[in-house]
Amino acid sequence: MVLKMIKNYKIFISYDGSRYRGWQRQEGKDNTIQAKIENVLTELYGKRIVVDGSGRTDAGVHALAQVANFKADDAYSEEYILNYLNKYLPDDISVFEITEVSDRFHSRLNAKKKVYEYRILNSNISDVFKRKYQYRVEDNIDVEKMQMAAELFVGTHDFVGFSSLKKVKKSTVRTIFYVDVKKVGDEIIVEICGNGFLYNMVRIMVGTLLEIGMGKKIDILKILETGERPMAGKTLPPNGLCLKSVEY
Amino acid sequence: MVLKMIKNYKIFISYDGSRYRGWQRQEGKDNTIQAKIENVLTELYGKRIVVDGSGRTDAGVHALAQVANFKADDAYSEEYILNYLNKYLPDDISVFEITEVSDRFHSRLNAKKKVYEYRILNSNISDVFKRKYQYRVEDNIDVEKMQMAAELFVGTHDFVGFSSLKKVKKSTVRTIFYVDVKKVGDEIIVEICGNGFLYNMVRIMVGTLLEIGMGKKIDILKILETGERPMAGKTLPPNGLCLKSVEY
Repeated sequence: MVLKMIKNYKIFISYDGSRYRGWQRQEGKDNTIQAKIENVLTELYGKRIVVDGSGRTDAGVHALAQVANFKADDAYSEEYILNYLNKYLPDDISVFEITEVSDRFHSRLNAKKKVYEYRILNSNISDVFKRKYQYRVEDNIDVEKMQMAAELFVGTHDFVGFSSLKKVKKSTVRTIFYVDVKKVGDEIIVEICGNGFLYNMVRIMVGTLLEIGMGKKIDILKILETGERPMAGKTLPPNGLCLKSVEY
Repeated sequence: MVLKMIKNYKIFISYDGSRYRGWQRQEGKDNTIQAKIENVLTELYGKRIVVDGSGRTDAGVHALAQVANFKADDAYSEEYILNYLNKYLPDDISVFEITEVSDRFHSRLNAKKKVYEYRILNSNISDVFKRKYQYRVEDNIDVEKMQMAAELFVGTHDFVGFSSLKKVKKSTVRTIFYVDVKKVGDEIIVEICGNGFLYNMVRIMVGTLLEIGMGKKIDILKILETGERPMAGKTLPPNGLCLKSVEY
């Protein structure tokens, strides 16, 4: 009998989330990113492989560099696994890096910072090649107002008012390290770095900034204080959102 | 009775061709770019408007700046027409400029140069956000070989061997001003400028260059001489191709 070493692999994944119900595997549903990757690896190893992601992304949200890890025996080289994954994954999911990591590494529990990006196209003309990765708004937007309001999010606060959570069991306190709002051509790009995010939190934060940019008065500090979801802006659509990176 | 002036409008259009049967209107088919634009303008003016493009693009081919023109009365300002078009066109077709031009301007007959771009991703990993605008090849490609071969196309030749024309009635002589092959990251971008192109000509020219880059011996000069289509490379898929600009 040959003893097989169990190895822990960290993978970096980019995906166009348009076609999927989000990252997380769902009972009886095949079209999630996690399920797609697990199915290919399960096929490769001939037994059930579980892939843990750094966090869920919602239906329709994209990732430039989602991080996940899985444990498996040492039957294959990293290069072989990478090629196998990309050969059998659909074209809108790519695994672009794989490295063996310490047995103790866990992509979700060890994540220290996550960076999300939300793209708004401020134009009455669609950008045909980027339309699936932008939310288009025709109204006039005051980017400076957005930039000033963005600063109010920075720090450690209870973000429950900026989430779509129905029942709150765990802590809703999170730390936001920066919120960067910049205008590039007709695009307004909002980049948010935090130690973690609640359900829909980025989309509501950016929705709130956007409404402020369109002239609405919204008291961010008061929402952080009271947790009153209705005072905040709308949840923006998922297609403008992309998980850019995860830091450990 | 009020006499209406007939004006001639030049429009610039970008489109993601993925969903369409190409530029040209087809009897009984709604899903061509020309039909989409004509339908919106016909709605606006309350009578049949014909839009003439600088040339056809095939099913699945994209355009960064297709040029077309149409004649209509002076009922609306350019700004109004532009806004109306973008309001009612689908998100994968944008009209980004409109200007009144001389009565004699014809987008096809007056076109002097056209620039097409073909994008090849040389990688075993898909670029999830650009996959619809690239043709992906895993094999090793010698870009220098492609560059050297590309020079052979330059000049005025009979390109019938690099076309999918079945019956040849009109002249198949065209002038190629330059063929530029460059490597940017994992992408090989082939840009071709000519005074006109035969059916599938760009896709066959790039297919031929690609096979040469992969080590195959193909005698471009001989094909230009003999018109022997079977000696040339394969017709590459449409999704890598984009009409970049038209010069007048």
